[in-house]
Amino acid sequence: MNELDLVDRLRKMAGGRARGVIRGIGDDCAVFRPKAGEDLLLKTDQLIEGIHFPKSMSADAVGERALARALSDIAAAGGDPRCCLVALAVPRDKTDDWVLGLFRGLLRLGKRTGTVVAGGDLAQDDKVHCSVMVVGAVKRGRALTRAGARPGDQLYVSGRLGKSWEQSIQPRLKLGRQLSGKATACIDLSDGLALDLHRLCKESRVAAQVESVPVVRGASIERALHGGEDYELLFTLPSSAKHPSGTTRIGEIRRGRAGEVWFKGEKLPPRGYDHFA
Amino acid sequence: MNELDLVDRLRKMAGGRARGVIRGIGDDCAVFRPKAGEDLLLKTDQLIEGIHFPKSMSADAVGERALARALSDIAAAGGDPRCCLVALAVPRDKTDDWVLGLFRGLLRLGKRTGTVVAGGDLAQDDKVHCSVMVVGAVKRGRALTRAGARPGDQLYVSGRLGKSWEQSIQPRLKLGRQLSGKATACIDLSDGLALDLHRLCKESRVAAQVESVPVVRGASIERALHGGEDYELLFTLPSSAKHPSGTTRIGEIRRGRAGEVWFKGEKLPPRGYDHFA
Repeated sequence: MNELDLVDRLRKMAGGRARGVIRGIGDDCAVFRPKAGEDLLLKTDQLIEGIHFPKSMSADAVGERALARALSDIAAAGGDPRCCLVALAVPRDKTDDWVLGLFRGLLRLGKRTGTVVAGGDLAQDDKVHCSVMVVGAVKRGRALTRAGARPGDQLYVSGRLGKSWEQSIQPRLKLGRQLSGKATACIDLSDGLALDLHRLCKESRVAAQVESVPVVRGASIERALHGGEDYELLFTLPSSAKHPSGTTRIGEIRRGRAGEVWFKGEKLPPRGYDHFA
Repeated sequence: MNELDLVDRLRKMAGGRARGVIRGIGDDCAVFRPKAGEDLLLKTDQLIEGIHFPKSMSADAVGERALARALSDIAAAGGDPRCCLVALAVPRDKTDDWVLGLFRGLLRLGKRTGTVVAGGDLAQDDKVHCSVMVVGAVKRGRALTRAGARPGDQLYVSGRLGKSWEQSIQPRLKLGRQLSGKATACIDLSDGLALDLHRLCKESRVAAQVESVPVVRGASIERALHGGEDYELLFTLPSSAKHPSGTTRIGEIRRGRAGEVWFKGEKLPPRGYDHFA
């Protein structure tokens, strides 16, 4: 297939207009009609072969993962995904079936979460490189950010930490929506608890004390603190608030040097998966 | 610099909130507040070292080009750019100065065109790979598309064709806004006149007859027809309409097989820069 045929095929797979998408695949730009009273959330994330996933990963798992990572950020902002754009570069040795497989995986998760594929860009490169840009929506002024945690707030995570890339990502969209208007700060765990909690604290100009962490079976505490494949939500609630089911209290927010994180009485370095370290 | 420091630095360079960006670099998502009565235009474009630009290109030229290509599509839809996200992967051997240089070039064009850098993603890869996603705005229902050309419409291009990647891209934003509500169809020339006119005609379910093409000094007609570095606008107007200054009539829309393009009486193959050919 040449590029024209491939785009035609993807357009048919992606389906029609929905979720505010007035014009989707097949034009210079996608056209999106926002609803009154909503803010939009914008997020882009890269998935690179050999860095974020192994060459052996199946095409549909790659597609699902590429979208899931960006959706996890929409969840962290308390939003509802609407549509996405996919910038995909693939090596010459990948077949059309491989490319279609990637989109099948991506579209399956899109359908499950209400995310329409509205457009994208195809190119050739030495290895697979997939950037997904997601547009989400949230009630005006209600986006959760990293910046609102206050001393005395209690610190929670969803699920258990220390996962590996072999586990599929379940973006915590429902939880994010529950937290919108309730959590004082929120971030998704994509680079490990130590680094992501540091980021949340830095933006909120507070410190944090972590007491214990729920760990997946077989994972080390080191992995739970500094691993980078969790895609769970880390959030803060006022001490009076009830936390949603499926979430665990792991510590609390303290006054202190902005960004400083303590774990069982010791300072935790902001070290996780740093692409530039 | 590690990733945290680099993001801090970029955040300072990118500046504050503007153009509807309520929250920019430094959170899981950027937050954008749309204006009432506007549709949004979404576009992503990839710029890959060795494919879309040579390794020798300066960092700031790469940054400028990455944004310019996506802005050209916003122009083709008759829109006004508002903000962008930048997904950047760079090899280990690129210095922090190189990365900052890329952003300097991108931000300079951003300032000139009113495009705020609202967020992005950084990663490491074997070569430079820069995907820019732009959000533009247009009066509700006024987005130009490829789909509205009718038999009898006159066909125009801006500027002259046959450019090479050595020439910097001037996204035709002002012209695009002038054409909004007037042109029946519009596309930006990124893969050569033959292929892009084929695309416009296919979406509009019409054919086209090209009579002559304005060519840049020193370029061949072959390059003007099948080259891919023009970033000019190709558009159609009803035969009664006046065309904006700086644009040239090159032919007209005919009844015929959808997507068929004729040049001086001969059928022109839809061949340009095809990444999958």
